[in-house]
Amino acid sequence: MKKSLGPATLAFPTPVWAVGSYDEDGRPNAMIAAWGGICCSQPPCLTVSVRPGRHTFAGIMLRKAFTVSVCPQSLAAEADFLGLVSGRKTDKFAATGLTPVRGEHVDAPYIDEFPLVVECALIHSYDLGAHTMMVGEIKDVKCDADKLLDDKHPDPARVLPLVYAPGVGTYHGLGPVVAKGFHAGKTFMK
Amino acid sequence: MKKSLGPATLAFPTPVWAVGSYDEDGRPNAMIAAWGGICCSQPPCLTVSVRPGRHTFAGIMLRKAFTVSVCPQSLAAEADFLGLVSGRKTDKFAATGLTPVRGEHVDAPYIDEFPLVVECALIHSYDLGAHTMMVGEIKDVKCDADKLLDDKHPDPARVLPLVYAPGVGTYHGLGPVVAKGFHAGKTFMK
Repeated sequence: MKKSLGPATLAFPTPVWAVGSYDEDGRPNAMIAAWGGICCSQPPCLTVSVRPGRHTFAGIMLRKAFTVSVCPQSLAAEADFLGLVSGRKTDKFAATGLTPVRGEHVDAPYIDEFPLVVECALIHSYDLGAHTMMVGEIKDVKCDADKLLDDKHPDPARVLPLVYAPGVGTYHGLGPVVAKGFHAGKTFMK
Repeated sequence: MKKSLGPATLAFPTPVWAVGSYDEDGRPNAMIAAWGGICCSQPPCLTVSVRPGRHTFAGIMLRKAFTVSVCPQSLAAEADFLGLVSGRKTDKFAATGLTPVRGEHVDAPYIDEFPLVVECALIHSYDLGAHTMMVGEIKDVKCDADKLLDDKHPDPARVLPLVYAPGVGTYHGLGPVVAKGFHAGKTFMK
């Protein structure tokens, strides 16, 4: 028996991505986005949504670039802090001890301590209301060498990404593998 | 030491959402989307990306409606099957035993066995290349009554959403709570 909860942003899971940008003065900044996801395979793109009033917004628009640093389970408090204060008033890197690294392919910084990072060129932005959806074309993905499964694939069991649950507002770890994609469903093939 | 992996859709986590629609003949259909996420708080919106050649595509465009049914850990094989075959040739509901239920607010079916479902009206579609990003305004969220934490909040520990890891292609469970949002970061406040 399903109960109606009305129109609300209640879907699981969402990512915990630090969106890195340089602000108008060239200072590195990062905010946390749970509103985002991969949105195209070719060209490879992802989207993150940012409120127009956020300090991050102007920086991305100006430089047409941002990064996504995937927050690991071990840095949940740091990640949460990035969503609690504004880069307008606070140097979040100084406050947390996290290290900004200039992107190799785009004019935006990523977070060195986060194991998996994605460099994006802003190719579209769509004003949806409270948030503007930024579409970034992925120019490069970088992963800590010791967290790779092979030459091409980050190992989720070593990256240990945080997972967010909207509504209740909890950060979770990634659970164990329960099935293999493009494989488990074959049991239903006739 | 980070290693470059080139431009690729490698970010964790992604959702495992069944996108429900009626096809041109009025038959219920569902496909799996890992490319998607919440994209706006007000109006509440989410996005899923669909390849234009998919059977789902025409149905969504015609009826301007789709649903997202959040796949639970216990139905990983069923979820995977929804991504393995086309609704053009296969009645995926008959093959898996899953039950389509007509949406209450939009002209699209959701999956009764999935604990958390979202009814969406298509308000924008953006052609990005291989995928078209569909933005749905959330008209209602429904959750199994026994999986709610209170009157308004689904309990992630009872919904037990699947989580996908692109690249390696594994479905994971949701791990335990490691921190509380808008709280854990206060440790860095001066």
